[in-house]
This record gives sequence, C-alpha cells and structure tokens, in this order.
Amino acid sequence: MQHCDTLILPRWCIPVNPAGQVLENHAVAITDGRIVAVIPAAEARTGFQPSVLVERENHVLIPGLINAHTHAAMTLFRGLADDMPLEAWLHEGIWPAERRWVSAEMVRDGTELAIAEMIRGGITCFSDQYFYPEIVAEAAVDLSMRAVVATPVVDFRTGWARNADEYLQKATDLVHDPYADHPLITTAFAPHSTFALSDESFNALRVLADQLDVRVQIHLHETANEVEISLRDTGKRPYERLLDAGLVNRSLLAVHAVHMSDEEIERFAQAGVSVAHCPNSNLKLASGIAPIKKYADAGLNVALGTDGAASNNMLDMFSEMRMAALLAKATASDATAVTATEALHMATLGGAQALGVEQTTGSIEAGKWADLASVNLGTLNSQPIYDVISQLVYASRADQVADVWVGGRRHLENGEFAHIDTDAVLARSNEWRERMTDAGKVQ
Amino acid sequence: MQHCDTLILPRWCIPVNPAGQVLENHAVAITDGRIVAVIPAAEARTGFQPSVLVERENHVLIPGLINAHTHAAMTLFRGLADDMPLEAWLHEGIWPAERRWVSAEMVRDGTELAIAEMIRGGITCFSDQYFYPEIVAEAAVDLSMRAVVATPVVDFRTGWARNADEYLQKATDLVHDPYADHPLITTAFAPHSTFALSDESFNALRVLADQLDVRVQIHLHETANEVEISLRDTGKRPYERLLDAGLVNRSLLAVHAVHMSDEEIERFAQAGVSVAHCPNSNLKLASGIAPIKKYADAGLNVALGTDGAASNNMLDMFSEMRMAALLAKATASDATAVTATEALHMATLGGAQALGVEQTTGSIEAGKWADLASVNLGTLNSQPIYDVISQLVYASRADQVADVWVGGRRHLENGEFAHIDTDAVLARSNEWRERMTDAGKVQ
Repeated sequence: MQHCDTLILPRWCIPVNPAGQVLENHAVAITDGRIVAVIPAAEARTGFQPSVLVERENHVLIPGLINAHTHAAMTLFRGLADDMPLEAWLHEGIWPAERRWVSAEMVRDGTELAIAEMIRGGITCFSDQYFYPEIVAEAAVDLSMRAVVATPVVDFRTGWARNADEYLQKATDLVHDPYADHPLITTAFAPHSTFALSDESFNALRVLADQLDVRVQIHLHETANEVEISLRDTGKRPYERLLDAGLVNRSLLAVHAVHMSDEEIERFAQAGVSVAHCPNSNLKLASGIAPIKKYADAGLNVALGTDGAASNNMLDMFSEMRMAALLAKATASDATAVTATEALHMATLGGAQALGVEQTTGSIEAGKWADLASVNLGTLNSQPIYDVISQLVYASRADQVADVWVGGRRHLENGEFAHIDTDAVLARSNEWRERMTDAGKVQ
Repeated sequence: MQHCDTLILPRWCIPVNPAGQVLENHAVAITDGRIVAVIPAAEARTGFQPSVLVERENHVLIPGLINAHTHAAMTLFRGLADDMPLEAWLHEGIWPAERRWVSAEMVRDGTELAIAEMIRGGITCFSDQYFYPEIVAEAAVDLSMRAVVATPVVDFRTGWARNADEYLQKATDLVHDPYADHPLITTAFAPHSTFALSDESFNALRVLADQLDVRVQIHLHETANEVEISLRDTGKRPYERLLDAGLVNRSLLAVHAVHMSDEEIERFAQAGVSVAHCPNSNLKLASGIAPIKKYADAGLNVALGTDGAASNNMLDMFSEMRMAALLAKATASDATAVTATEALHMATLGGAQALGVEQTTGSIEAGKWADLASVNLGTLNSQPIYDVISQLVYASRADQVADVWVGGRRHLENGEFAHIDTDAVLARSNEWRERMTDAGKVQ
C-alpha cells in the first residue's frame, strides 16, 4: 500500500481534460500538495493508505474554479454605487471612494474578504488588478490562496504611485523576490486601459514584460464609448494601439473585449490572445454582451471573471459560468451555443491558460497542484440528475460547494472553513463600512 | 398587552409598498395567518405578547417571492435535454418525455419537489400551468403553499384530455368546489399559446372566463418563429388573434412577451395587461431578451417567473430578479434601467398584481396574508452593507433565505424545513430518475 496525504472519493469527478468526461466512482489521491492519481475507487481503496479520507456520496469533484479577472479589495465597496450610469459610477461613486479610502490596510482587509468569499464558492485561483499588489500577494500567501497578482500601470498619480515609471518599477520589484518561482503567486503587468497610458508607456511596459517574461492583462474594448474616444483622440481603436506597441501576442489577456470587430477577433485568434469574459459586470454597467460564441468559433481561448464586487456584485463563478452559457445562446440565437461543458472549461482550464498557469492547475490530472472543489448535488435544486455537467452549470449555486483544497491544503470541510477566521474578516469589513458611512457616504 | 401568534424582529424590513422603503428595527406581528402590525420594534416588544418570537439580527424580512410562471412538475425533467436547439428540445426531449411519463403520480411528485425547492428559496406563491392541475392544487394545499393553478387548454389530445371542450370542462370544474374562495388556491385558464388553439376555442374560452370571472394566462410572442408562423398561417400576429378574441384586457397575463412591437406594448399598457418575464428561460432556449425597460416605461405591470425547470434549470427567484435587472441595463444601454427596487417589486407585488392576488399578498402590510421570507445578509458575499435593497438583489442568493411563512404557517426555520419531509421528496424524485433512465433516456 502506498501512502498519500488525502484520498477523495466523490460520487462523480469531472477532470475537465478530456472535455466532457465524467468519471463515476473514482478517487483522487493527493501527496505533497499535488494530485498523484486519478483512478477507480476500488483500486484506490486497496492501493492507497491515506492520512485523510474524504468520502462524498452526493458530490461531484471539479478543478477549483479560476476567477480570471477581479479587483479583490473592492469588495469593501460592494453595493455603494449601484444603478448609476457608468460615468457617474466612476466619477461620483468609485473614484472618490478610492481616493479617500484605498490604503495598504484597506487592500489587506478587502482582499481577505474577497478570498474568503471566493474559497466559499469553490474558487482556488484569482487574477487581481489593484493598488498595493504586494499586499494582495501577501494576503494570498498568508491565506494559502493561489493568485495571479497583476500590478496596475497608469500614467497618472494615485495614492500608490506618481507616474508610469514608478508603477513599472513597482511591477518589476514584485516580479523578483519573494515571488520568483513561488508555489502560489504568479505576477503580471496590468496596464489599466489604453486611455490610461501613452504610447511611450506602452512601449516601456512591453520592453520590460519581454525582458522579465511576464504576461500582460488589460481592460480592452469594454464599452463602445472607450473605442469611440480612442478613435477621436488617437485615430486608432484601442486594439490598434496595442498592436502597434507589440502587445498583441499569446502573453496578452484582453479583459472584457465586449466590442470587437470580426477582423479583430480573427487577429486575436491568430495571435493566441486570451479573453477574460466578465458577463455579469458587463451587464450591470450596461457595457454590452461580448460575442463569446464567435470567440469560441474563431478558436480564441475564453476565460471567465467576476470583475470587482463594486460592479457585479458577487465573486461567484457559478453565476459567471451559467451567465456565460445563457447569454451566448440568446445573443447567437442558438440554444446549442456555449454548452455546459464549454462553460466549465472557461471557468477552469480556459482560465488557467489565460493566466499562463495551465501546466500546474485548471484540471484534475496527476502532477498538477491539488486545487479542487467538491459540489453537493444532493440539494433540492440540483435533483434529479440525468447529466452531471448540466446540473453543475445550469442548476447549482456556489453555496453547494462543500470542500475546497488549494495546493492540497484543505480550506473548506463540508461548508465550514478550516483555518480562515471569517468572523474576524467580517468584523473588519464592518469596521470599514462604519468608517466610510460615518464619513458621509464614502466621499 | 395584545396576544399575537408570531412576532418577527428582523434587522431590516422591506415592505415593498411604499417602493424603496427600508424599515430598520421594526417588527411584524402575525395572528390567524395575517399580518396584524408593522411597527417599531420597541413598541412591539411592549405591545405584543407572542406565542412565537423570532429575532433575526443579520436578516432582512421581505414579502415572500412570487413565481409568476412555472410548470412545477417538470422539475422531474430538469437537465434531461440541455444545450439542444428549441425544436429538438421540444420534439426529441420534452414532448416524448411528457407523452411517456406524465401522470397524476408524476405531477404530484414533481410538484412536491418544485414546492420544496421554491420554499427553500423564499417563494411563497407560484403560478402553475400543467396537466393534472387538480393534482397541483391538491399538492399545494397539502404542503400549505399558495398557488395560482391554471388549467392548460389546447385543441389536441394529450394523456389528460381529448379536445378543447374537455380541457375547458376540466378548467371549469376546478374553478368551482373545492377551490371557490380557498385561502391558498386561485384558479385560472391557461390556453397554451395561439398556435395551440383555434379562434373557435379562444372564443369559447373567453365566454367561460368572463362568466366565471377567472383570469387568463398564455405563452405569447416567446420566439420570433412563433410570430412568423402565426403570420404565415393566419395572416395575424398572435397578439392580434387575442385582440380579436376579446382577450386583451386586464385579466390577461402575457407570459414571455419577448418579441413585441412598440405599438403592441402601448396597446397592452392601455389595456392593463401584465407581462410575466422569464429571463433565464428566454436566454437558455435562445428565444431572446424581452425589453422590460420599455414595458416599465410604458406603464405595463411586469412580473417575474422561472418557467419550468426543464428550461431554466432552477426555480430561483433571486436569480430571476438579478437577471431581470442586469439584462435590462445591457439591452437598454442604461445602467440605471430596472433598479434593485424595481426588480424586487416585479418579484413580489408586481407578481401579485399579474395574478390578481395583490389584495391579499405581495407586500408586508397589515391585513394581508403573512407570506414572508427572511434573508440572512450576514454572509461573506453580502457584506458590507451600504444599501439593503442593492445587497438583496445584486449580492444575495436563494440559499440565504432563513425563514419562510405562508399564510402565517412556518415552513422554514433557520434554513431547516418545519414540516415538509424533503428526504421523502428527494427519494421519490430519484425513483423517477431511475425509472426514466432505465427506460432508455426517457423515451
């Protein structure tokens, strides 16, 4: 008998790779944080002697979900500026709140709240863009969460840096120690958008990104207005500015990509660009609906993201999976567009590919980190079960997540947190609310 | 001190009428199934001596949600025909399954599963269209659920009736004993759609509906194809056929209404027609997106429905509220379209109006039935709280429902069912799954 740290025996297991496969009565063995075997349950019971045995008779085991785009700390702004036009939301709601309140302490507390919410909903990896990325990384490491920490870059002064040079310097610092080859943290560059950076800054950023071999993610073609203003001010669409800066390649993650021409889609596909689709946020801010069936048909890799909680307002990848599949059907006038299997891929392996971590996470395969979630399908809303993947995507909610592991470390056990002190997290979130509210509606 | 059966002391209370009001530290007193007072908590504590006291410090008390359109028994077909084109879904998936499996027993078991799921998610009233409506009504009464039971009417033979005359006879029987003036059950007529009934049948139905004073609900303009085929076959749009039959009036509930001209919207508004918007189902079957901001602007009353679980796949009104608000913003290119307050109205009082039960349910007001739900906003995904209604609509899920009362009877207590035996309900659902699966994928 071979020893293993944890042996999980779920009713079903969806490895995601190969696509559409549902294993019944299989076991997943974990040792030293990694998946060491995915084999029939009977074989596992006789072959492995586990330190911890987890049996789940109504549950499906899936790769931990990957939130390919968020601003974690903004959970502390959740719901403070809803039902407002986009311009007012930014100028009267979010930006004044950020100028007044963003600090290392706020980012730490907001990121912890976000991480706890994400783990509760089966997310085991998130890609973050926010001020104080060094604090985001610290919080993720302290809470044992996997994260792609992208340093924001803009041309203007904020509380965190003065100009593009300083942002890029901070981005470079983060790439080196302590996060070179860190088991949980990957770093990236996040130029905010084409309207926030000059061509000069883009060129400097591209040179650095090439030197350091880091990936780049940017809000792109999120609104029709963004494209129009770019054309007016520069004579180019945002996409063209990236192209001219040499940034349209397989290191690029285009976040949102709501308003894209057929030609742009084709060029993105040829270049190997990934798209982070954030359907709930795009609806809520009235940005539009990204044509992801076209993206999939063109061979583009699509990931899913929640965006920040100020524009969603939940960090819930079950909601994004379902929304992505449903919206694609209506906008393509085709009920077969983006199947449950495809939506699940976007929320797992597609996300890993978009973030450049597909060698180590995003599917249940021997050798990868044990980033896993079990989902209870025994609830009223998920019964009866004819098709496990359909039930997972179309008839399940984040609260049905029962167990979560990140790199083999147990985070959630039958819905209870194993080591994050959520009472403390909620208490600090409430203190921030009181502080902001006392100051007169956060401004 | 006045006696009352139940005194509820939630942190917040949203009566829905008046719109947008959030009461803090108020109490709701219940006696003989009805709300007898909505008053400040301090006053209630000294003024009422309750048999049962319910204190909820993190919770918001709302009117029970109203699911204005479903086919409850179809929960037993949940997920058996997903990601299929609409025609194949009907012809290869749903209709063969119905021909083979629909029976009094199946309707009873499927309706019980649906009722349990709905109550778990804070729904206290549902409007149903399905075969064996007498069994639906029986199940609702036995489980103490409020229901509008609409008898289906079509021209063709099914396992339940042979022709329009027989459907209408059965519909008439249901209006009389035992459901005349029943505290829980209201009856209605449900001609399936204009393609399922001749002009003759519509005329007979209208005469009967007028005589008996019952309301009419019909699937209308659900797909572009439905409108085209009607034009081709009859020279009229479905709406025009209803108009000619004298059915366009304030007794009419138009279900779906995805594809409506501006003129039709205006005529509906003038006539006082209500619309049952089923956004998740309309997306999943690729029917389209109903322009509900236009409906609201025209003064039409909009209700929300889940549709059946074979096309949704959850009976979750939180999902519908959120989806209605989000979709309206994107399709109207206006982030202020359908606010959280408006979406909550659609899911409660708007639903009651659409079903003709607004005098007795749909809001928290003295004299109405105590149809209530408490929702726990103390969860990670709903914190912090700046705006209670925003948090409820944009950042809460059905699983946060903690307590539910229908007509004052307690159904859910801190998430646990008080009297429905959900293990038995799930066991029967599983038996149906086995039976259908053994028979070779339900056909």
